[in-house]
Amino acid sequence: MSALARRGDLLRLSSLFVRTLREDPADAEVASHRLLIRAGYIRRAAPGIYTWLPLGLRVLAKVEAIVREEMAAIGGQEVHFPALLPREPYEATGRWEEYGPNLFRLQDRKRADYLLAPTHEEMFTLLVKDLYSSYKDLPLTLFQIQTKYRDEARPRAGLIRGREFVMKDSYSFDHTDAGLDEAYQRHRDAYERIFTRLGLDYVIVSAMSGAMGGSRSEEFLSPSVIGEDTFVRSPGGYAANVEAVITPVPEAIGYDDAPAAHVEDTPDTPTIETLVAVANAKHPRPDREWTAADTLKNVVLAVTQPDGTRGLLVVGVPGDREVDLKRLEAALAPAEAEAAGEADFARHPELVKGYIGPAVLGPQGTQVTDPATGETRSAIPYLLDPRIVPGTRWITGADEPGRHVFDLVAGRDFTADGTIEAAEVRAGDPAPDGSGPLELARGIEMGHIFQLGRKYAEALGLKVLDENGKAVTVTMGSYGIGVTRALAALAEANHDERGLAWPAHVAPAHVHVVATGRGAEVFDAAAELAEGLVANGVEVVYDDRPKVSPGVKFADAELLGVPLLVVVGRGLADGVVEVRPRAGEAEQVAVADAVAVVTERVASLLA
Amino acid sequence: MSALARRGDLLRLSSLFVRTLREDPADAEVASHRLLIRAGYIRRAAPGIYTWLPLGLRVLAKVEAIVREEMAAIGGQEVHFPALLPREPYEATGRWEEYGPNLFRLQDRKRADYLLAPTHEEMFTLLVKDLYSSYKDLPLTLFQIQTKYRDEARPRAGLIRGREFVMKDSYSFDHTDAGLDEAYQRHRDAYERIFTRLGLDYVIVSAMSGAMGGSRSEEFLSPSVIGEDTFVRSPGGYAANVEAVITPVPEAIGYDDAPAAHVEDTPDTPTIETLVAVANAKHPRPDREWTAADTLKNVVLAVTQPDGTRGLLVVGVPGDREVDLKRLEAALAPAEAEAAGEADFARHPELVKGYIGPAVLGPQGTQVTDPATGETRSAIPYLLDPRIVPGTRWITGADEPGRHVFDLVAGRDFTADGTIEAAEVRAGDPAPDGSGPLELARGIEMGHIFQLGRKYAEALGLKVLDENGKAVTVTMGSYGIGVTRALAALAEANHDERGLAWPAHVAPAHVHVVATGRGAEVFDAAAELAEGLVANGVEVVYDDRPKVSPGVKFADAELLGVPLLVVVGRGLADGVVEVRPRAGEAEQVAVADAVAVVTERVASLLA
Repeated sequence: MSALARRGDLLRLSSLFVRTLREDPADAEVASHRLLIRAGYIRRAAPGIYTWLPLGLRVLAKVEAIVREEMAAIGGQEVHFPALLPREPYEATGRWEEYGPNLFRLQDRKRADYLLAPTHEEMFTLLVKDLYSSYKDLPLTLFQIQTKYRDEARPRAGLIRGREFVMKDSYSFDHTDAGLDEAYQRHRDAYERIFTRLGLDYVIVSAMSGAMGGSRSEEFLSPSVIGEDTFVRSPGGYAANVEAVITPVPEAIGYDDAPAAHVEDTPDTPTIETLVAVANAKHPRPDREWTAADTLKNVVLAVTQPDGTRGLLVVGVPGDREVDLKRLEAALAPAEAEAAGEADFARHPELVKGYIGPAVLGPQGTQVTDPATGETRSAIPYLLDPRIVPGTRWITGADEPGRHVFDLVAGRDFTADGTIEAAEVRAGDPAPDGSGPLELARGIEMGHIFQLGRKYAEALGLKVLDENGKAVTVTMGSYGIGVTRALAALAEANHDERGLAWPAHVAPAHVHVVATGRGAEVFDAAAELAEGLVANGVEVVYDDRPKVSPGVKFADAELLGVPLLVVVGRGLADGVVEVRPRAGEAEQVAVADAVAVVTERVASLLA
Repeated sequence: MSALARRGDLLRLSSLFVRTLREDPADAEVASHRLLIRAGYIRRAAPGIYTWLPLGLRVLAKVEAIVREEMAAIGGQEVHFPALLPREPYEATGRWEEYGPNLFRLQDRKRADYLLAPTHEEMFTLLVKDLYSSYKDLPLTLFQIQTKYRDEARPRAGLIRGREFVMKDSYSFDHTDAGLDEAYQRHRDAYERIFTRLGLDYVIVSAMSGAMGGSRSEEFLSPSVIGEDTFVRSPGGYAANVEAVITPVPEAIGYDDAPAAHVEDTPDTPTIETLVAVANAKHPRPDREWTAADTLKNVVLAVTQPDGTRGLLVVGVPGDREVDLKRLEAALAPAEAEAAGEADFARHPELVKGYIGPAVLGPQGTQVTDPATGETRSAIPYLLDPRIVPGTRWITGADEPGRHVFDLVAGRDFTADGTIEAAEVRAGDPAPDGSGPLELARGIEMGHIFQLGRKYAEALGLKVLDENGKAVTVTMGSYGIGVTRALAALAEANHDERGLAWPAHVAPAHVHVVATGRGAEVFDAAAELAEGLVANGVEVVYDDRPKVSPGVKFADAELLGVPLLVVVGRGLADGVVEVRPRAGEAEQVAVADAVAVVTERVASLLA
């Protein structure tokens, strides 16, 4: 069966609602954003909010159609939820608060609370609860392709991080864990087919489930230097989102032989570098040089809970690593974190900036006395990097300027309230599964699959009767594809300095016919060719603009990025037209054969 | 070319996400709402906000496809705007305020004002301004099929008046009035084709343009007793929304011979009926009986402007007519009106309820003194029904209880601040164009076409250079179809007491195959038949539920409303199946012929 329709569309550039721009828009940082704007696919309506022009909408419709087909192929049934939803279900699961400022909230004329849904777990759970009651009704997979809203703090990169965007979200419902595993695997396979059909390179990485709850979770990333997600890969096949990387925990070390901790003068050592230098100069270690990895850096962070309450947290990491805010936030989700500010330090004079020692932190200092007021209060929670196991020896601050403690032994001289995965992951770090050193890369998150488990079903009371007539809580999966973001990832992966270069399956048209010249015979021949292609089911952009120079027409064709260019012009006198792939070699084809040859070329691109 | 696809869908009821309800939902007043819920097409998510289940979404997609095809056929180019929009463009045109409480407003995390768009005139105007600059770019028609929001005071009747709904909105751009006329006519023709293809009876009526501004305006109504719009028709072909009916103004009458106005005692006459009775008993008219039409009723109304300011207005109408609040509001748009309350009368003791005379109203009483405070202030505006022309003689209140003025002559004894179309329209009233007496009917507004003119282009600065290089303001049209509402109108027009009965072009499937019986041979034969139809491009609902009684299956089939029912059951022993239109006679068809016969039947339904 041919992939071509009965009749293609003919888009005449003389009347198509599009204007190309020669200049990059000022606010566009990445290629997809720049080119989608310049080629007239989208226009910005507000920060992170875009309007789709005809060419963009055609690409979007094709991406959606591929997603829809593959979801139907795994038995997904399409539904469509509202975007404007009442507060109550999200209140029941705690997400009304957890989403914090990322949620668009509003009130209707009766002062009832509503939200613009960022995702629909609650509504799907309630709908299934409304309709189904028996295990015989399961398994069930529902999906929608729908507009979603997130009030991003920093909308950026055009469609890649927007505030109004299109997602495919689907949800699986099973009464057994094995059923959930199967539904998860079906989605995983469907996603592989979807991204393959879209022509997108992808990596599947282990992920944190974040605010979604649940257990198993993987992301589909499109590798791209402009991606917001950093992921790791090992030679042995481990791959994970950097937030999900688990630090291999070293064995604890005996410390019977360790010297006692001793405080030393270390003047002018506000940074790790100065500290290491002074330590090596004034307090040399007998066996080797001190390095940054011997120091314990205590980083003060301000953590904001979804309900707006703000508190401090100190994280201890080896001094050769930074705290990675994204990893920290993933570990603390749904809370948000930032570096503590001057005002925070001012309120906590016991935290001596640059010289913070564990004396003031953690269980060993559960109560502190405010020197200004004489009041005692709880210490600040103190969490350690998992590498800081009992027996490891550290140089750290001595809680006064210009002094550090040496030979401070974890487990002997200090303990913490727990561990946290917050230190940066670095190239060369060992993979947690022993599969070798990690390499780091960046990617655009296009899809995310989660095993939600019973969290939402429990919160909202979704149960079915099992084989024995017993009510059991349903287990769910949640599976998303950022449809508009995948389109942007396609543009990122398929462009050059001259413009976009769409894969044929998602291109706004298959062929771009350019009429160059002034004679009516050129336009007549080009129109006839375009019509012939359209009759064969080929989608054609036809540049019929009468007074536009060939140079401008070619530049526009390369900017628009339709896969095949057909030039009707000078060659006409010799009975030929030129056929040229978007980034390939030109070929002369006899006018009489052109429709057949180009149709065949398109059919093979779509095969 | 066949209207059938290459391969149809097969919807097995054993796994289709649908549950039918035997009982009407408590909140459903109208048939479409009741049946769409009961048949499992939609579910309520919040007041006026619905979720689309698989069957409903299939119908919606078919309605959208017909609208899309016909819009493309008149050269409409599809785009897609966000629903979440910034305040500024709506501020520029005044609609941020004018929409009043009907607009969903919200703020983002930076406290910037946003709205959920009820319609997109501003955004289309700005987009065209962004892209186009010459008359050569015009004419242009853009459209979208998109989710819209209105915070209705009284969402009702399911999809008919919802708060989140799907609309097709299109906009035409021309640089000449003649161009706008053509664009308007093209849309009018396209709408006729759309509603005809949908299988909907429709009436085109003249309409008010309301808050939209502009000049020529017509509505497409689906006649229905449950419709919210009242319209009129005359035998001569006049048709108008009742809000748009213009009262034929009688000729002024000379009043040289009219007796002087005189105040009479009319005790206990708080109503028109009591007044007419007392007038005939105590102050008889020499030539004929007094009737209600001889009395002038002054109705006090409270008018709220979009900015929330509230003031009173008095409307004088002949006593045999009520003030029609909808007509009044259409005349006052965007202000809203309601009957004045006790508190209003308390604040205006000069308004003697039941005895209000023109002495206290209108220009003849431009200042009034508040008897309580001694302050003077402006009189309440006074507007008259257009029938109350100079020379007409009236009985009306004398501004004190139990007394009325007789022989009060308009133009001699009182004048007003103007006229207003606020009196009710009644069956038998003359059509304004002289085409005969009006009859009244009700309808569901499915479409509305407007000549906006230059209002939005002026407010937002959309100009193009004309043939002479002169910047001219563009003239626009705005054209809407309530897609979800049209679907509801289809359900209203196509149902019986047993369920829905869809026209084939919009039905969720073409054929409903029911397997009745317990033997495997029945299910095998039914499955084979269903598969055969699907292979021919027929869309099939197949009731393969193993333990459901024939009675329940037939009831569900009639509730779902698929056009053709095929029963595979008892007849199988005789080698036949039963083929029955949703509301027609059954026919026995040989099993061997069934696929061919039913396919043929479907093809002719779709022809």
